[in-house]
Amino acid sequence: MTDFTVMETLHIPADTKIVHLVLDGLGGLPRELDGKTELEAAATPNFDALAARSQLGLAVPVRPGVTPGSGPAHLGLFGYDPIRYEVGRGVLSALGIGFDLQPHDVAARGNFATVDEEGLITDRRAGRIPTEYGQKMVELLRGIQLPGVQVFVEVVKEYRFVLVVRPTAGQTLHGNIADTDPQKVGVPSLPARARDEASEATAELVNDWITAAREVLRDHAPANSLNLRGFAKDPDFPKFPDIFGLKAGAIATYPMYRGVAKLVGMEVLPVAGEAVEDEIETLREHWDEYDYFFFHVKKTDSAGEDGDFERKASVIAHVDEVVVPAILDLQPDVIVVTGDHSTPSALKSHSWHPVPTLLWSSYCRPDGVAEFGERACGRGSLGVFPASDELPLALGHALRLTKYGA
Amino acid sequence: MTDFTVMETLHIPADTKIVHLVLDGLGGLPRELDGKTELEAAATPNFDALAARSQLGLAVPVRPGVTPGSGPAHLGLFGYDPIRYEVGRGVLSALGIGFDLQPHDVAARGNFATVDEEGLITDRRAGRIPTEYGQKMVELLRGIQLPGVQVFVEVVKEYRFVLVVRPTAGQTLHGNIADTDPQKVGVPSLPARARDEASEATAELVNDWITAAREVLRDHAPANSLNLRGFAKDPDFPKFPDIFGLKAGAIATYPMYRGVAKLVGMEVLPVAGEAVEDEIETLREHWDEYDYFFFHVKKTDSAGEDGDFERKASVIAHVDEVVVPAILDLQPDVIVVTGDHSTPSALKSHSWHPVPTLLWSSYCRPDGVAEFGERACGRGSLGVFPASDELPLALGHALRLTKYGA
Repeated sequence: MTDFTVMETLHIPADTKIVHLVLDGLGGLPRELDGKTELEAAATPNFDALAARSQLGLAVPVRPGVTPGSGPAHLGLFGYDPIRYEVGRGVLSALGIGFDLQPHDVAARGNFATVDEEGLITDRRAGRIPTEYGQKMVELLRGIQLPGVQVFVEVVKEYRFVLVVRPTAGQTLHGNIADTDPQKVGVPSLPARARDEASEATAELVNDWITAAREVLRDHAPANSLNLRGFAKDPDFPKFPDIFGLKAGAIATYPMYRGVAKLVGMEVLPVAGEAVEDEIETLREHWDEYDYFFFHVKKTDSAGEDGDFERKASVIAHVDEVVVPAILDLQPDVIVVTGDHSTPSALKSHSWHPVPTLLWSSYCRPDGVAEFGERACGRGSLGVFPASDELPLALGHALRLTKYGA
Repeated sequence: MTDFTVMETLHIPADTKIVHLVLDGLGGLPRELDGKTELEAAATPNFDALAARSQLGLAVPVRPGVTPGSGPAHLGLFGYDPIRYEVGRGVLSALGIGFDLQPHDVAARGNFATVDEEGLITDRRAGRIPTEYGQKMVELLRGIQLPGVQVFVEVVKEYRFVLVVRPTAGQTLHGNIADTDPQKVGVPSLPARARDEASEATAELVNDWITAAREVLRDHAPANSLNLRGFAKDPDFPKFPDIFGLKAGAIATYPMYRGVAKLVGMEVLPVAGEAVEDEIETLREHWDEYDYFFFHVKKTDSAGEDGDFERKASVIAHVDEVVVPAILDLQPDVIVVTGDHSTPSALKSHSWHPVPTLLWSSYCRPDGVAEFGERACGRGSLGVFPASDELPLALGHALRLTKYGA
């Protein structure tokens, strides 16, 4: 586990640059055909050549056996133990749709629901209404105003939306509020109950909003009611640049990853399009401005989620062909290649498997294995290690940590 | 991390003997020539033969990416987590020059400095005066007396010295005192300010000494002033023999290592000279008296610090030729060979790289690799592990731990 006090005490300025290349959901599982994983099956001459000069290992995103969501998985890569540094669901949902969450906002996940005439829930997901229907309901809800706060309602997908309450009168809102969703049908929703004294005023505001919202939705069955869950605020973590002494730039095209990077205090850089070529352009443009770059590739994960082995392998091959040479051209001092978690196409979902990881610097001790893949990494000299060790290791190899003790 | 409570509860008496052979700064980096590290390049037939019957692994001295000083690195080898068990700089400095520190002493690092007529610092290192000049200043300072305490001043090197204050009137001194060094020039020194109430009387004594010392130094520019840093006392750690149930003898020729061994409660054995042959003689003489021997070899580190790849390799080869057979002749039950940290000659300094480590006992599971080197250890069955696990592992293999639970 990273001890931030140690990192904060030891980091020193240096001219070195670190690139953290994250292929989302990189880890995979063998297909029966030839027993190779997506990464092993992909044509990756550049990764393999880099591996020959690198150390390899397997990164455990959260804990052994635990499958992480994208938020916790990225916190691990950024050096934060995801169990200790927990981000509320409401905040993750807001980040996931690219909402520009402010430090004092309280966010919650919302579900449209169906209730009967007595107010008892008959469907917790409002018959899984299409997103267009959800969007219309969200627009109706935007008419509701509350004193002293600004209220944002944003559609996520189908019956899901995000509610954000922002103080405008200098007051402090608090998010320690219980879910209104009773998690079963045939019963009424629960009130938004404060779990501590500080959250009571905010809970009252939220209950006023819920009452008004149900009034607005009354005639819009199946979305004639709603529930709120996962109330949370920006957890105000220690900031990445302070912990590690790195000016950090984040390059990612999807809202969730940009959001988590912003949450830990990285600067999120503009990317012109959704392709890795656009991300490379951003990396080149801002190369001189930052010590550390988080470079995120989304499509490996999407292909894994779709269960498309070949597509995942070809995304990896494309990164190998296009991204790796571009990074090497810029002559960074340390390169870490990894994923935030595994997304084996065999499982069509995130998984708990540790993630193949490569660490290169001119001060690393190469394993001498010219192959980047799950099995090669399983024999690597980095061993099986917590993903949150990647940042301290990168700092060491970037000559950015002074000696501990005499 | 070692849980001392577990060790204290489980250790049982046995007739077995453990030798912990520590080659200081053992870990290295490949030279470009043939891609071999110092250890890999050295002729080590005895280590290799022992490796074939041993388990191999890589020990992390403090935390991944963190480069340790000698003090913390040895605490790790002795089973103490060096982050939890921190030793103050003043104490490490006193140990480093072989000062016979007592449990109630308060020690500080001192720097001679140059100040202008207004008392503003113009050089925090007094123009890096030669050691002989520092020695003369130290002798002048020895004339200063304080009521109720004995004061020791000892030269370290160039502008550096150690101040030790020892109570003689039964009172207790406290070392939670801030540095007087403002860490920049153009400003006056700070007073020695107590950081807690208990340390106020000691801080007052120290300030009296500083005032008298500056008076003594007044006409000795560039050493016409001084600063004190890193005030500390013996941290009074749990003692090694109590934790592990081992009567422990330390064999080392350099003051720092003898000092740290003494700090944790080992008995420091006399060595006739500075050569490993002298250390072997000590090991033989005291073989029957102890359960555990810490056997320290300094010259691997010195060669690494000098950037001398060949010399470091030849020190390793000499240990292989002379020390290993001598240890085997004595028929210990467990042998651990490791370093306290890496000192790659390519870096000319301590480094963060994990340390090649070998564990032999007739109850180990041999990896069957007849080679002791960084890469072989990187594939070893001990994996990448905290150095503070070495003692518990050694105890287990020495049949010195009873079953935990029923």
